This record gives sequence, structure tokens and C-alpha cells, in this order.
Amino acid sequence: MSKSKVGNFFEDFSLGQVIRHAAPRTVTSGDVALYTALYLPRFAVQSSAAFAKAIGYREAPIDDILVFHFVLGKTVPDVSLNAIANLGYADFKFLAPVYPGDTLTATSEVIGLKENSNKETGVVYVRSTGKNQHGETVLDYARWVMVKKRDKDAPVGPEVVPSLPKSVAPADLGKAVPSIDVAAYDKDLAGSPYFWDDYEVGEKIDHIDGMTVEEAEHQVATRLYQNNSKVHFNQYYEAQGRFGKRIIYGGHVISLARALSFNGLENAFHIAAVNGGRHVNPLFAGGTVFAWSEVLDKAEIPGRSDIGALRLRLVATKDHPPADFPLTTAEGKPHPAVLLDLDYWAVLPR
Amino acid sequence: MSKSKVGNFFEDFSLGQVIRHAAPRTVTSGDVALYTALYLPRFAVQSSAAFAKAIGYREAPIDDILVFHFVLGKTVPDVSLNAIANLGYADFKFLAPVYPGDTLTATSEVIGLKENSNKETGVVYVRSTGKNQHGETVLDYARWVMVKKRDKDAPVGPEVVPSLPKSVAPADLGKAVPSIDVAAYDKDLAGSPYFWDDYEVGEKIDHIDGMTVEEAEHQVATRLYQNNSKVHFNQYYEAQGRFGKRIIYGGHVISLARALSFNGLENAFHIAAVNGGRHVNPLFAGGTVFAWSEVLDKAEIPGRSDIGALRLRLVATKDHPPADFPLTTAEGKPHPAVLLDLDYWAVLPR
Amino acid sequence: MSKSKVGNFFEDFSLGQVIRHAAPRTVTSGDVALYTALYLPRFAVQSSAAFAKAIGYREAPIDDILVFHFVLGKTVPDVSLNAIANLGYADFKFLAPVYPGDTLTATSEVIGLKENSNKETGVVYVRSTGKNQHGETVLDYARWVMVKKRDKDAPVGPEVVPSLPKSVAPADLGKAVPSIDVAAYDKDLAGSPYFWDDYEVGEKIDHIDGMTVEEAEHQVATRLYQNNSKVHFNQYYEAQGRFGKRIIYGGHVISLARALSFNGLENAFHIAAVNGGRHVNPLFAGGTVFAWSEVLDKAEIPGRSDIGALRLRLVATKDHPPADFPLTTAEGKPHPAVLLDLDYWAVLPR
Repeated sequence: MSKSKVGNFFEDFSLGQVIRHAAPRTVTSGDVALYTALYLPRFAVQSSAAFAKAIGYREAPIDDILVFHFVLGKTVPDVSLNAIANLGYADFKFLAPVYPGDTLTATSEVIGLKENSNKETGVVYVRSTGKNQHGETVLDYARWVMVKKRDKDAPVGPEVVPSLPKSVAPADLGKAVPSIDVAAYDKDLAGSPYFWDDYEVGEKIDHIDGMTVEEAEHQVATRLYQNNSKVHFNQYYEAQGRFGKRIIYGGHVISLARALSFNGLENAFHIAAVNGGRHVNPLFAGGTVFAWSEVLDKAEIPGRSDIGALRLRLVATKDHPPADFPLTTAEGKPHPAVLLDLDYWAVLPR
Repeated sequence: MSKSKVGNFFEDFSLGQVIRHAAPRTVTSGDVALYTALYLPRFAVQSSAAFAKAIGYREAPIDDILVFHFVLGKTVPDVSLNAIANLGYADFKFLAPVYPGDTLTATSEVIGLKENSNKETGVVYVRSTGKNQHGETVLDYARWVMVKKRDKDAPVGPEVVPSLPKSVAPADLGKAVPSIDVAAYDKDLAGSPYFWDDYEVGEKIDHIDGMTVEEAEHQVATRLYQNNSKVHFNQYYEAQGRFGKRIIYGGHVISLARALSFNGLENAFHIAAVNGGRHVNPLFAGGTVFAWSEVLDKAEIPGRSDIGALRLRLVATKDHPPADFPLTTAEGKPHPAVLLDLDYWAVLPR
Repeated sequence: MSKSKVGNFFEDFSLGQVIRHAAPRTVTSGDVALYTALYLPRFAVQSSAAFAKAIGYREAPIDDILVFHFVLGKTVPDVSLNAIANLGYADFKFLAPVYPGDTLTATSEVIGLKENSNKETGVVYVRSTGKNQHGETVLDYARWVMVKKRDKDAPVGPEVVPSLPKSVAPADLGKAVPSIDVAAYDKDLAGSPYFWDDYEVGEKIDHIDGMTVEEAEHQVATRLYQNNSKVHFNQYYEAQGRFGKRIIYGGHVISLARALSFNGLENAFHIAAVNGGRHVNPLFAGGTVFAWSEVLDKAEIPGRSDIGALRLRLVATKDHPPADFPLTTAEGKPHPAVLLDLDYWAVLPR
């Protein structure tokens, strides 16, 4: 029997199973440089140590989405190597800042299992947790994926579907943000005069710019995250696959859309939580990604007068400038240009 | 009204206006690694902390052109997002070394404005200054760009064209170079026995090697500099544009040519100043960049016996090995293979 | 006479000649991030400072193959710029760990010279040594390359072929590995329960995954190593060359195969020595690289009860999943899919 792994299949998971994932990862300023080079983020808090320190951080924190990529990447070999669809996220919270030099590890607990009626696949629900070298949880989220069965006839346990919140409560936001000295927050350097109070529910923002993705770029990104999902790197297999080409990691689109959203959300310096999200269509190399946002809700954060939260819809589109804010068609179907529909809480100074 | 920005148009600028640019940027060893991976620079001072310390630096300084890219990148959203041509540079001086950990910010002052006769565009002259976190100026330069008007009929102020020096005076060179212990400067490690005294005015150097540029490479580079100029990243728009394809950031060519110039200028470890420069032709992915240099002048630097300055012409060509030193055609027009014609002062040990 | 270099030709080398190579290089966490992004290595010791410290390292060491690339890169301008084939390696030993912040320099001694009968080329044997800033040798190896003569009629000295060992002795292994606290070695985090004792001579491992290589990726990698070999970067020349396209640096294949080999060799955290190796076929962009391994031998390391050595054959293939372990054809010729056949000693906890 070979010592190499082919990943878990649906029948390999059991309810309550806890998986300690491999490949602990020390995050460095090298990762930050690459992340900048891959997406063009410009949020001042993550870009400048001087800015971050002035407002209360120990130093410039690692971009939240980069932290997510690292944690998710660790879970892939155990959870989703045989997944055919990434179905959703919920109760997704950033709980402590991550700084260069911190080492991230990840564990997942199986919190739900539901075989599909075709008996060829099933849905695996996990709660994944990323911790730093001090054992502090930096990220915690539920995720569910559709995973193939190795053997259609393999017996499986009873169906358990976990109850997950539709959104993260405002009281759970901002744990990863130290007390901010708003007077020291330089709006010119941050790039916008608009703070939390200046946004209104229902407001839509066209982020204007677009970014074309090359094969080398998404491969470099996904390897940086040590995400070894097969479909992103192997043209030999994908040539024979569903699309005939490599599928870009959905997280690459999230990072692109988040970086594009700087234009209009310059002071939304932190993603506190993700309420839900959907990869509506796959992206392939050569596509140009655009983004728009809508303010879905506003919330004060209990006990915090320095920051407030905006609930935002972040929509990424492909080869479609988003001035018309595409989301659904007249028939109520997803607009064919939409790649991503993400519902998250951002934090801004107030 | 949307909170996202579309950049300033000619009529938005006013004489004496000072713009504090967004996106302060902490420079790290991660940026240095990427810069190395993008261009193959080999100058010992920037490549080796041990070498740099031995001759008098605190540690290995950041490549001068990388400092330029960061400072320029900050100015783009405010100054040149609606530019249709980058017309020139003058009085361009590096004034202090930049080390990993330093945070760069940039400001620009509008020092000249000149509407074009077609009233559709105008030339904006700015003096841009990059500072570190201590408020020290690390780079200072004048630049002028041709910017579109939003409205042809918009009234504009009187024409002011600043007086700019044709070259930087030797007394202004070398401010970013500490006192060098020339005895500790190891010529073997640096890669050449030729110091300042060994070069002669009129000498031409074929840098021999060539480098083919890929889309992913120039995009990664330009994003690293947080330069969000539209034409470099967006194939969706550029497919409909003037060339049908993405235009490579002119600074990418400068960095390639500078790195190629190591072969023959190994000890020209610092760019002290740029007297002027012109992007003669655009570069597109797939092109192979070559370079050659000519020694235009030599100068002692007042008060410095450790280093001397060479005034160099650095010419980059496309798909044309430069053994014949192409510059102009027999008719006096720019040679069609020429991409860049840069006039700068380099510093060498003596 | 131009100051730029075109590299040494066969008749330029002399027996016993010692070359101090240019471009000393400080290795940083930025290099590590890029290396991760280029190959997807996941060995816990190199990936995690916390893991490395727990078992006895000062911090996470630099990947062995990355150290090799840096040292080899320095030798290229002097040794192999005019090489037409990289013929072999022997007696190749890693002797001290390299950490971020260390500065690497390299020297080579000519230990053999053998003109070919056609008088157009000759084989140059060098012993190359990489040292850190303290003068400690971190890597030492013999290499031989076939180098062009500038002038067919140039006289050359007598033929000297050095005697080189077929393999590195177990007593010479593990010098770059501190005493390991095996009890602190977390198998879950490392990703496998298999230690040295669990592998058997003759065992073959299919590493399963494949990685498609893009032009931008191998160019970025090879420039990172400051390896200026002409054939990797210059499509203008290579279009007229033997293959019509850029040839990927053979070391890129070694790094890909090593990273792929994590799946099945998760605890083989260190390459202690290379006994020999051959680049069987060239790789070009667009090819998908797979890998398999065979355990050729096992050895205890004298004086070390913490670690043991596995002698491994690492075979990389192109566009050929290695489940059938391709190596030679029925006629005894190299299998056409094989890119690399490497014979090395890996170290594992025991």
C-alpha cells in the first residue's frame, strides 16, 4: 500500500471527527509582498507599518483574506481533495490579528454529513479553526462541500445537518481589531474622507477597475497558500476535464474583488466576518475581473465607539464592467457574468 | 454620487496644489525578493547585506529603481490615471537610502499647467517627493504628463511652464550613499575590476543579454508597486484600445534595462539622479528587451573621494540585440527598436 | 574592448584555477515565500518556525534545494554560460543549515578538464562551495558540464578526469541537521505517521499530483536564483535555437519533483546529499510535471539516533502520471516521459 494520499471520500468522514491538518505555516513579510503583487491591495492598515502603529496595531497586520487562504489551504488535503463543489460558508469570524512571524495551524471538526440521493456524493460540513503559535484562534468558520464517495455502496451514518446562523451578530465583530485611535487615522493616507457614518444602507458602489488573470498568477497564489486542490495546477488532467482547462481557485476571485473594492471603500480596512458566500461561476485564465458592492446593513459594535460595521455584498463579475450592478437576470437567475456573491461585515473607523 | 474615484482630469489641477497621496507602503525583504525574481539584478550592494555593511551601509539598501516605482505608484491615482502620455522627468534625485522596514509616503505639488491647443488635453507638471517614516526625503523629482480634460470647454488658468534643469549637478549626487570604505569593496564579489577611473567618456557597452517579458510578470511587478494605471491590467478594455493589448508599465523596462546593465557596469551600484528620460516606444508581452549604455560624462562629486559619478545613457531595445548600439535612424528619427532612452548619473567606487 | 562579459570558453579554464563568483546573496523570508509560491512545498520544518524550533532548529531553515539554486546560480556566469550540457553532479553534500538573513557566496575550483575529440567542446569539472557570512561551508559539490571552445584550434592542457565517489557515505550525512528532539516532532502537523523505520528498500511511491509550468513561473524562479543562463529567458534567440523555445532550468524540475514528493515522503524533511543526477529530457512551458520515488537504500547515520537516511531515486516525468513508475523502455533506453533521474540521501526522524 502506497504511503501517498489521495484524500478522503465521503464515507471516510464521521460526525465529531477532529482533523489536525498538516503543514503549519509561518507567515512572513514575503507572503505580504507576494499578496500585494498578486492583487494590488492598498488598504493603509495592511500596507503600512507606520500607519498601523499610529492607530493602535502592534505592526501592520496580515490581510484577512490572506489569513483565510492559509487556513483553508491546510484543510484542503483532508477535507476537499475529492470535493466537486464548494457549497458555502457561515459563521465565519476573524478573532485575532495575525502578524508577520506568526505560525498558523488548522484543525477541522466534522459537524454534519448528508449523503446525496444519488449515493455518489455527500455533503460534508466542517467547522475549521486557525490558530497562531500561542494557541489563540485567529479564524473560525463553518464550511460545507460536496465530496465524492469512493464506493457508491459504502454504508454511511445518519444524516446530520448543522444549524448555522444566517449572519454573524454585531457583538461578535471586531475581535481582531485593537482599540483604534481614530484621531490618528490619517484620511489622506488612507485615501478617502468617508468613514462608517458616511455610508448608507442600499448604497451601491461601482469599483470601476478590472484585472485580467493569467495562469501563472493564480497558480503562484494558490501554491503560496499551500492549497493543493488538483484542479488549479494540472493542465494534463484538466484538458480531459469538465472545462478543458484549469479552474481558478475561488479564493483568488475573493482576493481580487476585495482589492478592487478599495476604490470606494478605502477605510473598510478589516473584514470582521463573512455571513455567507457563493462562487456563482468559475473563472479561467484570460478573464477580467470587476467588482461592485452594496451596503446591506449598518451596525454599531457593542462596546466600541472607535469602529462601526457595514454589512456589504461584494459581487465580482467577469468581462463585464459593473456600472449596471449585475446580480440576477430578469428571470431571477444568476446573471451569467457574476463570479462571486459574498456577504460580509467590514469594519471602518467612525 | 459614488464614492469611488475615476482620477483627476486636467481642469481638476491648480497651480501650487499639494496632493498627499494615499497608500503608505512599508518596504520589506519580500519586495526585494520579488524585485530580484522579476529582473535578475545582481549589484552586490543591494544583493548582499554582508557586502553592504562591509563598505559602510547599515544593511543592504533597497534598489533605487524600486524606490522610484513605489513613489511613482502612489502618485498615479491622483496624477496620471487619466494621462495619455508620460512626457518626461527632470531634476530627479535620490537623497537618502531606503532599507527594509522603512515606510514610504508621497506628495506631489503642481508646478506647471499648460493646456494643449486642441483643448482636449493639457500638460500637468508635478514635483513629487517620497519620504520615509522619519520625514526624510528619499526621492524628489519633477515629472510631466499629458492628461485628458473631462470637458473640452472647462476654463483653465494661465499657462505656467516650470524651468527645470537639463541635468542634476554633481554636487547634488551621492546623498543616498554613506561614506564608502573602498578598501573593503571586494571586486571579485562585485563582479568586475572596473571602477570609476576605468570608464571613459564616449565608451559604449553592449550589455549582451536579453529578457523576454510575460503578461504575468509585468502585472505582478506593477501591482507590487501599487501602481493602478488602467492600461497595464485590463485586457477587457485594452482589447478595444489603441493597441489591442495591455501596455507594459514603462518603469518595467527601466528595471529590466538597469538589471541587464550589470554586465559591464557591475560597480555602478547606485543611481544617484536621473537627468531625463523618454519612453520611445511601448512594450508588449512577448517582446525581448536588450540594453546598451554610453558614458556621456564623468564627474567628481564635491567632498567625496570614495565615489565618482558617471553620466550614462541607458538605451533599451526590443527584439534587437544592441551590438550596433541603435538609437536614431539615418533620417534622425528614433530607431524603431528603441524602447527607452534614459540619461542618469550612476555612482561607482574610485 | 568591451567591459561586458560573454562567459568562459573551454580553453579559458585551467586545472586548479579557483574562481570567486560574483553576486553575494542575502537569503530572506521573501525568497522563502517565492519558493513556496513557485513549487508548493509543505515540509513542516521549512514551512513553520514553530515546528522547526520545537525539534531543535534555531528557526525554520531554508529549503535545501533553494540553497543549491543560489549557489549554482552564482557559478553560472563563470562556469556554464557557454555550456551546452549539464552532465552530472557528485559528492554533493549539505553541511550547515541556512537561515533567513544569511549571506551566501560561492567559489569553484577547476578539478578536471577533458577536451572532446571533435575539439569543439570539452568537459569542465568543478568543485563548487557555498559559504555563509561566517565562512562556514553550507554546500559542497562536484559538477561537470560540456563547454564550447571559442577557437577549435586553441591548445589545451593534458586531460585530467577527477575520481569522484559513486555515492556519499552515511557518515557524511546530516551535518546540516541539529540534534532533533524526536518526541517533539508532531506527526500530525508534519502530515504522515511514517518515519525512517517505516520505509523499505525497493518501495516505490507514486506522488500522484502534477504541476503544469508556465513561462512566467520558471523565469521568475530562475531570476530569483540570479542564474543568468541564456537559454531560459530569451525567446528572441531561442526562437532560432535548437528547440524554438525557452528551455526550463533543470533545477526548476528538481524543485517541482521534490515538492511533489511530499505526498508519501512527508517526514523526509532534509536532503542531506546528492549522489548523482541526470536531466534526461528538457522541459518546456506548458508541460505538466509528475514525480515518483523509489527507496534505493537505507542507512543509519553514525553517531545519530535521532535521524536515519533513505537513499532515494526521485524521477520526474512530463505529461505522464507515474503510476507505472516509468524509467526505461523495454529496449533499455530512457523512457521518453522522464525528465529527471535523481539519486539522493534524505533524512527522516527515527
